[in-house]
Amino acid sequence: MKPYLQKTTLAQAQQRWFEALSEAGWFKQVTERVPVQMAHGRVLALPVRAARAVPHAVTSAMDGIAVRAVDTRTARLDLPLTLKHPKDFVRVDTGDPLPEAFDAVIKVEDLNFLDDQIVEIHAAAFPGQSVRPLGEDYEQGAIILQAQQPLTPEAVAACLATGVETVEVVCKPKVLAIPTGSELVDPLQALPPGKTPETNSALFQGYLNRWKAEPTLHPLVPDDEAAIQAAIEQGMTDHDLVLVNAGTSKGREDFTTTLIERLGKVLVHGVSMHPGHPVALGVVEGKPVVGVPGYPVATWVILQQFVLPLLERYYGCPLQPRHALKGTLAQKVYSSLGEIEFVRVRLEPTDEGYLVHQLTGKASALSSLINAHGILVVPEAFSGYPKGAVVEVQLLTR
Amino acid sequence: MKPYLQKTTLAQAQQRWFEALSEAGWFKQVTERVPVQMAHGRVLALPVRAARAVPHAVTSAMDGIAVRAVDTRTARLDLPLTLKHPKDFVRVDTGDPLPEAFDAVIKVEDLNFLDDQIVEIHAAAFPGQSVRPLGEDYEQGAIILQAQQPLTPEAVAACLATGVETVEVVCKPKVLAIPTGSELVDPLQALPPGKTPETNSALFQGYLNRWKAEPTLHPLVPDDEAAIQAAIEQGMTDHDLVLVNAGTSKGREDFTTTLIERLGKVLVHGVSMHPGHPVALGVVEGKPVVGVPGYPVATWVILQQFVLPLLERYYGCPLQPRHALKGTLAQKVYSSLGEIEFVRVRLEPTDEGYLVHQLTGKASALSSLINAHGILVVPEAFSGYPKGAVVEVQLLTR
Repeated sequence: MKPYLQKTTLAQAQQRWFEALSEAGWFKQVTERVPVQMAHGRVLALPVRAARAVPHAVTSAMDGIAVRAVDTRTARLDLPLTLKHPKDFVRVDTGDPLPEAFDAVIKVEDLNFLDDQIVEIHAAAFPGQSVRPLGEDYEQGAIILQAQQPLTPEAVAACLATGVETVEVVCKPKVLAIPTGSELVDPLQALPPGKTPETNSALFQGYLNRWKAEPTLHPLVPDDEAAIQAAIEQGMTDHDLVLVNAGTSKGREDFTTTLIERLGKVLVHGVSMHPGHPVALGVVEGKPVVGVPGYPVATWVILQQFVLPLLERYYGCPLQPRHALKGTLAQKVYSSLGEIEFVRVRLEPTDEGYLVHQLTGKASALSSLINAHGILVVPEAFSGYPKGAVVEVQLLTR
Repeated sequence: MKPYLQKTTLAQAQQRWFEALSEAGWFKQVTERVPVQMAHGRVLALPVRAARAVPHAVTSAMDGIAVRAVDTRTARLDLPLTLKHPKDFVRVDTGDPLPEAFDAVIKVEDLNFLDDQIVEIHAAAFPGQSVRPLGEDYEQGAIILQAQQPLTPEAVAACLATGVETVEVVCKPKVLAIPTGSELVDPLQALPPGKTPETNSALFQGYLNRWKAEPTLHPLVPDDEAAIQAAIEQGMTDHDLVLVNAGTSKGREDFTTTLIERLGKVLVHGVSMHPGHPVALGVVEGKPVVGVPGYPVATWVILQQFVLPLLERYYGCPLQPRHALKGTLAQKVYSSLGEIEFVRVRLEPTDEGYLVHQLTGKASALSSLINAHGILVVPEAFSGYPKGAVVEVQLLTR
């Protein structure tokens, strides 16, 4: 029996699906240990502790001379003091270890060399002046990075500085994207009449890579129930998430929802949202399977509203910056009451702030996404916003 | 003669360096043509035009039946009309081309099938109803993407949809990063007394990759004038930008600035900024060479303030999102008058907005960068800000 296309809110759908996956243990992180220099951009599974102190010794913080502060007590601007090498001072550059007998550094700008061996100073140095103590930046054993933190370039540098050679990181989820539909053809081939170039794979590839997942693009599968089932079943064996695009609507050849129900369980079919209404969220063998609607903007919305939060919950950290700004609507925006609407908008800067323009184009119009600066979300409780309303626009990340 | 460490403002330094590079023609983009599926994240050098229309035919926008609108005129809720297959209708699914005789689609939800061949409708269809016209999204020949636009996943999809197989993109600048200093050792080797692990290469690698440049990491070079000169000279032959780290200060073995002047021209040595003061900005053989100060936070600031704007000017588009937010200073912040200061801060959310905390730690303290949420910039004209001041914090991108 084909599961009935329901009316579920976006929040309910996310919650129901995540709960089922949580019960199945899917959010438990799988981890691996990798050399830190290979770990740029990866997410830490465990905190990292300094294997050695930084700096590793007492070092000079300046180019100049190392001295004993006590020897310099009497130096004044009107009463210069002369110091002799090597009894009273030795030359040091920034980062040099401080010779043990000394406890302060006077920087080169404050020195008056009378000759190679004799220098005149005009102020007393205090103990520790221009000196970096051992472990000033990181003490040995100190936690330098927390779990769930992404390894930024400076985080990698901190690992290397503290002698950390390998780090335990979260494994990237393997994702299989299966394009289905007898009308689809390879976009680089000639386009026979009645055929559609398959282009959503580019969205899957681009976003999954950006969100630290590992996408595999399945070859095109025709509208053949057995072939689609075989592709999903094969996907379950060596992937952590399967995206079936599309076949989730009410067409004669929409098998995806039925197949997910046959192989596992459909938790949600149909969400009160636009674009993206006929999404199917399922769990098969403890893993998430999504029937993703086929219109490109719908595919994009499903990626943003289900796949991104899924991966963020798995990783335990944000995978895409979220920034918003306020603007004034240049025209009335319509939305169906009871449905959350993702409106693609352009922002026009003016002296009084941003004007927000709705982009025309349905879920089929990739152009409405490409030309957008951001998304205006109209929640279920609103049937739209009047012209002149001040609204918040979620900026797109390029 | 060693060029004199000057006092130049950050804005002056950027302008002087960029002008010299502009005169040398360095900002002229080098371009290459690549298959669009290999071009994710690349920046377009030329606008892209649709090689074919999208949709490529008149297609159905719904699952349902294709009809002639004129035949349905009399249908009303209280006066249903029956249509016969194949004379009056044919079944179509979303995306199917509309058979030539028909001009409208009635969606499956609005149909009452009496049997396989006869359907009852309760409302008239208008011509073009639920039909996607040819070229609705993109007309053949239309500009779909502008030059200087990065290829987002949806931009790649739009190219594929419109039959664009290859795109002309901006070549990634090749950057050589040369770590110099006899005190430096490979961070993965045992650390002998008085030695420092070389960790800035991780910053160069991470940020240059993020900013669409192609970094090469040179092996460690000791403080040997001839060896450093040879490394720079070799770098000039097959790279577009050379970063020498460090040797730009006044230490006994600071050769970098002298060498840049010998091989080309030092435009700026010393900028009124902290961290990063002893930077050297030069041009050698028409290409930029930077003497980058060695403290990790100074290296980071120079990357952000000189290398990022350089690459953005070359590409003609932003390479890193810039977002800021306002907060209230939790304590007084000091800064030298006449010097721009980059203060690392943490943000503490409160009911009244964000509290801004300065992180202690000098330019040597990588920890001050790792633990920061953002940067508070104190301009040259200010000697700091009082506790309670409302300040703007530039958020770090993770």
